[in-house]
Amino acid sequence: MPWQFDIPEATVQRLSTYLTILRRLEGQGMPTVASSDIAHLANVNAAQVRKDLSYFGDFGRRGLGYRVPELREHLQRILGLSEGRNVIVIGAGNLGSALVGYPGFEPRGFHVVGIFDSDPAKSGSKLYGHEIFPMDRLAELVPRIGAEIAIIAVPGPAAQSVANDLVAVGIACILNLAPVHVNIPAGVACRRVDMTGQLEVLSFCLSSFSSAPEGEQVQ
Amino acid sequence: MPWQFDIPEATVQRLSTYLTILRRLEGQGMPTVASSDIAHLANVNAAQVRKDLSYFGDFGRRGLGYRVPELREHLQRILGLSEGRNVIVIGAGNLGSALVGYPGFEPRGFHVVGIFDSDPAKSGSKLYGHEIFPMDRLAELVPRIGAEIAIIAVPGPAAQSVANDLVAVGIACILNLAPVHVNIPAGVACRRVDMTGQLEVLSFCLSSFSSAPEGEQVQ
Repeated sequence: MPWQFDIPEATVQRLSTYLTILRRLEGQGMPTVASSDIAHLANVNAAQVRKDLSYFGDFGRRGLGYRVPELREHLQRILGLSEGRNVIVIGAGNLGSALVGYPGFEPRGFHVVGIFDSDPAKSGSKLYGHEIFPMDRLAELVPRIGAEIAIIAVPGPAAQSVANDLVAVGIACILNLAPVHVNIPAGVACRRVDMTGQLEVLSFCLSSFSSAPEGEQVQ
Repeated sequence: MPWQFDIPEATVQRLSTYLTILRRLEGQGMPTVASSDIAHLANVNAAQVRKDLSYFGDFGRRGLGYRVPELREHLQRILGLSEGRNVIVIGAGNLGSALVGYPGFEPRGFHVVGIFDSDPAKSGSKLYGHEIFPMDRLAELVPRIGAEIAIIAVPGPAAQSVANDLVAVGIACILNLAPVHVNIPAGVACRRVDMTGQLEVLSFCLSSFSSAPEGEQVQ
């Protein structure tokens, strides 16, 4: 499924990075920031920052830069995060458990509101204070708990069937952590975290380091 | 740390995607493939595929496309994966356990050769058949087990100190799964899997779906 929106995917990914940077600057009490400073912290150039923001309006003031809390709020609104998002995790194995206990979600507005597992033996037990529900209660519970985003943390062979179930109960946004690609229909957004792909990029880096000519600084 | 190599980072990421596609096609017994077919499966255009491959030589034959096993081998070599890579995991909590048991690594040439944890109580116990070692044996064991890539799977507050330890023992490639950024020196490659950032992109998608004008198909 290709990217389905008018704003480029790379821009949206960078907005998430800019938001992280602005939160940090706000926490440090910084009142304003120049696009060149955001650019430096995000490892892009200043023209890219200005272009990315220009899709959504004119936020900066010439010579004064951006007001940090104001731009942070704008970015939160653009990313749909003003009121937080309710997330469910499918799969209560090691990966699901790690996600439910992951401390990076809550401070950035993502609330885990349910965990589902196909193993009936796990139903009713708790994970970090959250009850584990059986998969056959998905249709009943998703609207009740206001689940908006689902994270697939099941083994590869089960991933497509879980994705189908999620789409059937009206989940429109899926983060797939299973080690396989899943097919989803138009009108549903799915992102995959491919950890092996990341290792492959690192393997390329390792080869490039070792093939750099003797005495030449790898920069 | 900005990207330190001549080949664009996005190209290397796409090579990893192309490699996954070629492995699948090879498994299906497909002898040749056109750049337009690879492009379709990778959600890019055919010119992009040809440009990405052109950094490394001239692999295709006009009108005939690419020989699947040959191009798969080329990509494996370019990504430094011809002989596999030895990986260590730092952190034997839920996330570390999920990684050590992750079935996506081994078929793509990544061998987990060690797990380290700072908790002395975990030392000596086993995870999926692998012994857990104490962190203070890192310097002794990394060269002995031939570790090339390290995955950081520790809580945020411990991540920078672990990264420093890894760099100190000569690890040049790090995959950071902790929910924080870590600083590393030039000559070391570090990639971060930011799961919250992925959820932020999905939150944008969700907002865009719900703001699409009534009756207009979101494509």
